Amino acid sequence: MDDDRLSALELRLARVEDELAITRLIGSYGPLVDAADADAVAALWAEDGSYDVEGWEMRSRADVRAMVLSPQHQGLVDAGCTHFLGPVVVTVTGDQAVAVCESVLVVHHEKRFHVVRSGANRFDLVRNPAGWEILHRTTRALDGSPEARALLTAVAR
Amino acid sequence: MDDDRLSALELRLARVEDELAITRLIGSYGPLVDAADADAVAALWAEDGSYDVEGWEMRSRADVRAMVLSPQHQGLVDAGCTHFLGPVVVTVTGDQAVAVCESVLVVHHEKRFHVVRSGANRFDLVRNPAGWEILHRTTRALDGSPEARALLTAVAR
Amino acid sequence: MDDDRLSALELRLARVEDELAITRLIGSYGPLVDAADADAVAALWAEDGSYDVEGWEMRSRADVRAMVLSPQHQGLVDAGCTHFLGPVVVTVTGDQAVAVCESVLVVHHEKRFHVVRSGANRFDLVRNPAGWEILHRTTRALDGSPEARALLTAVAR
Repeated sequence: MDDDRLSALELRLARVEDELAITRLIGSYGPLVDAADADAVAALWAEDGSYDVEGWEMRSRADVRAMVLSPQHQGLVDAGCTHFLGPVVVTVTGDQAVAVCESVLVVHHEKRFHVVRSGANRFDLVRNPAGWEILHRTTRALDGSPEARALLTAVAR
Repeated sequence: MDDDRLSALELRLARVEDELAITRLIGSYGPLVDAADADAVAALWAEDGSYDVEGWEMRSRADVRAMVLSPQHQGLVDAGCTHFLGPVVVTVTGDQAVAVCESVLVVHHEKRFHVVRSGANRFDLVRNPAGWEILHRTTRALDGSPEARALLTAVAR
Repeated sequence: MDDDRLSALELRLARVEDELAITRLIGSYGPLVDAADADAVAALWAEDGSYDVEGWEMRSRADVRAMVLSPQHQGLVDAGCTHFLGPVVVTVTGDQAVAVCESVLVVHHEKRFHVVRSGANRFDLVRNPAGWEILHRTTRALDGSPEARALLTAVAR
């Protein structure tokens, strides 16, 4: 009896811990990418993880690292940028998970702050020996395109 | 003794699960409403739940569904909109809960993104057989009105 | 054996509760400061806690309270302001914790909403008898300054 109760608790707590770990992983993206910490950003992805953001297709941790170090991203960081993520909705299924959130990019320019993009994000994650990692992330601007909207419907109740 | 420890754990874990379930429920609103998934948005509310947003009073799940399908909302979705929610502060009391968060609405227009509203939100929730559902939501623009500010004070420590 | 499992569960659950308590504490800041609830904002800090925000150095709960009641802040609240916080990444070590998040300040002016600042925030927290409290908070505008970026790197995986 007590053993069953213990096992049930362990299972439920593990689910909570998974959800929080993934929330934390994704929540780290904004601060790390805005600090231009290329290694730490890359480490959020699996070794062969990918990131597809409107015409920029990264296919490995090394590609993600190169994006952070790119002149485009460094230009944003030097100006002052905020990759602001909204609440993450996580669905865990065993060692895989899907997470969805919206995001807003704010960029500083000539002493003012501008919202330059608003986006839909879908993350597919996997539990590896080192913990949860991003296997694939897709980001699309919320500019009325059906493709962006389709990413958001991975929020299942 | 062990039985007491088990019971205490079960109670504490249930509280954590409630808080996360409500956080997830409310966090789903933005992605679902921006994807114009009318049924899924409506399902966040109780059958007789209500949503009062500045002059628009919805009094049932069907009303919420009709709002998502309305020309006003469809116009926003076609242009590209982001109902961006901030961190949700949840207070659970048995089978009822109150949650508060701020929100920002970003709308895409002529290749640019505009913050068109910033709001205060108070949710009253109830635990139904199907899980937590929104019984009443009130949203007011944070434009200096005392009414908007009053919604925010439901954040108790 | 069961005792070990119980103890392990208690320890893991306590970690989860700490993370959620700190997330909730920091998430309360926006709603409370935008509602101008000076006492409740001050109570988020430890008695001798400090808040350093670009040239404004508060060194106690009383100083934080005075900031909320200041003409500068009351002017923002009367106009309509939203201190919008992003996802908080929390690292707990015993009775101390560090948390990082980004933030956006939206201000209402002449029937429009403006993003007037985007910031990096680092919180150092302490567990006091009354629960978790902010010992020190540092906020810097994300305007390209290395100092703001340095605050964000306290996000450790």
